[in-house]
Amino acid sequence: MRATTIHAPFDMRVEDVPDPAVRRPGDAVVRVLRSCICGSDLWAYRGEAARQPGQRIGHEFLGIVEDIGADVVGVRRGDLVVAPFMWSDGVCDYCREGLTTSCEHGGFWGSVGSDGGQGEAVRVPFADATLVGLPAEAASDDRLLAALLTLSDVMGTGHHAALGAGARPGATVAVVGDGAVGLCAVLAAKRLGAERIVALGRHEARTDLARRFGATDVVAERGEAAVEAVRELTRGQGAHAVVEAVGTEQSMRTAVNITRDGGAIGFVGVPHGSGTGLDLSVMFDRNIALRGGVAPVRAYIPELLPDILDGTVDPSPVFDLTVTLDGVPDGYRAMDERTALKVMVTG
Amino acid sequence: MRATTIHAPFDMRVEDVPDPAVRRPGDAVVRVLRSCICGSDLWAYRGEAARQPGQRIGHEFLGIVEDIGADVVGVRRGDLVVAPFMWSDGVCDYCREGLTTSCEHGGFWGSVGSDGGQGEAVRVPFADATLVGLPAEAASDDRLLAALLTLSDVMGTGHHAALGAGARPGATVAVVGDGAVGLCAVLAAKRLGAERIVALGRHEARTDLARRFGATDVVAERGEAAVEAVRELTRGQGAHAVVEAVGTEQSMRTAVNITRDGGAIGFVGVPHGSGTGLDLSVMFDRNIALRGGVAPVRAYIPELLPDILDGTVDPSPVFDLTVTLDGVPDGYRAMDERTALKVMVTG
Repeated sequence: MRATTIHAPFDMRVEDVPDPAVRRPGDAVVRVLRSCICGSDLWAYRGEAARQPGQRIGHEFLGIVEDIGADVVGVRRGDLVVAPFMWSDGVCDYCREGLTTSCEHGGFWGSVGSDGGQGEAVRVPFADATLVGLPAEAASDDRLLAALLTLSDVMGTGHHAALGAGARPGATVAVVGDGAVGLCAVLAAKRLGAERIVALGRHEARTDLARRFGATDVVAERGEAAVEAVRELTRGQGAHAVVEAVGTEQSMRTAVNITRDGGAIGFVGVPHGSGTGLDLSVMFDRNIALRGGVAPVRAYIPELLPDILDGTVDPSPVFDLTVTLDGVPDGYRAMDERTALKVMVTG
Repeated sequence: MRATTIHAPFDMRVEDVPDPAVRRPGDAVVRVLRSCICGSDLWAYRGEAARQPGQRIGHEFLGIVEDIGADVVGVRRGDLVVAPFMWSDGVCDYCREGLTTSCEHGGFWGSVGSDGGQGEAVRVPFADATLVGLPAEAASDDRLLAALLTLSDVMGTGHHAALGAGARPGATVAVVGDGAVGLCAVLAAKRLGAERIVALGRHEARTDLARRFGATDVVAERGEAAVEAVRELTRGQGAHAVVEAVGTEQSMRTAVNITRDGGAIGFVGVPHGSGTGLDLSVMFDRNIALRGGVAPVRAYIPELLPDILDGTVDPSPVFDLTVTLDGVPDGYRAMDERTALKVMVTG
């Protein structure tokens, strides 16, 4: 089959790789219908996260079950399914508690020896625990497919961030980061009943989308000016719940400084310096909590799926560029140059 | 009156200062019956926290109301009362939410221009909101007075730490720090129903007290060996809830590394390097939360008081040395040299 590989920073290729096959009784093989490029893939693309030459990439996909191992009972050949960005066994202590990202037998798509989502097909370990079935009719609905694809990462991650931040009815939520995760966090905060949602960002296309997703206010300033602006919007107090969806020192510093005393930061930006932006003395004096991390999106799919199916929540507009598999390298370029927000890959 | 003053690092004096008096209609003057020395006072004693020469000190006290301003209705002359370590107005947004430490008009005993607890009397601003009445008969019960005195800081702070860490029925709680706050966190964790409580410490008198307070296990190792030991006790997973009651880089590093995936650290050690011990990448990968800060003990007194009055919770053994007011400098020396755990000051 054909799949995306990364050979060096900025060197993405689409090439022939071995066809996936059922290796263990719990495996399934999924023919990819839609996949996409994640902001976190850019860390590898830019060489800031190490990869072996030729390693697969892509951790968000949905598709059709093509083959199943002897033990698989939850999905059948021909089923439309979505995969979360990690596989998990569903039976360990952590999985039973919903923390599927800490699964004792879990792993990442695209890690050495596994298939990546940005390819024609994927071998899925622990298929019963990992995959979630979708209504067959969704396969012919492009918008719905796009919305459902976000369950594999960004919508679940945005939800995790909003939960970590403590988004709730009546709360003011501020979102640092105007990428797909930040925008999904706006959707999630609205879904959780936030009264006011402040989106920080200055790319108009993105802040327009934030407003469409439920943001009541947009702050275009950065750094100290952003802090001032959020405080002005909140009687000088800051936001009850702050989403940090970037992972840099500046974004975390901003997040700390716009959080209201007693509030919380939901952090889902992969840390790339953000630890340095965490001023523990400020957090101590003001009782600011920090909660988050890699999102156990598998556990969130059952809760989010009905709202996506009935259109209550529609994250599909986060995709503003669609490429075919051969166009994946162009998709990386577009996201790296921020000419695209999030790139969808059709089979 | 006589009161403790700090003139330079290691230069504590007990000297004549102006008598406190009601200055505003909401003030009360409290004649101090018991006060004590806090581990956090040692930061000033050692010169690691700046103080003006002659500044007062001490933020934990209980005593008898001697005078009240015209607006005070909640306490009367002659009442036995306990004061939390900060005063607060009781009416601002934060006070109404229970975050009295963020009170818009709040302040610390011993800050410039205010009385400290380690003296004969204290002017108390916002007396109705700040002071909590105690049964008059407690005044003649030395043990009970000692237990009640901990409501001004260490018992409430231990409770805050245990809450922040997520201590709950069935949970394994680990406590980093064998000072009075750490020991009170053991008591608090037990009170909140923790199934297993691991106390980290190697001073036998303190770990014996930890066991008496409810610790089921003691880990004497430090650093990497402590992490190994806690993991061995928890099937390799770590503790659900970890209290960080020291504030140094090493204590926070240990706290992070002994927390179970998906667990939380309740931090109440005043940060003195602990930010550096916070490995955000580890916290991200394992979804470890951080919650805590300066404890709003005023808000906890109503909940904790009944258990202290009926003896269900008895933190009084944290005091292992008692001095008179003139002996306060000796008390500091003893705590600094760790020959005393916590020093009580009688009037």
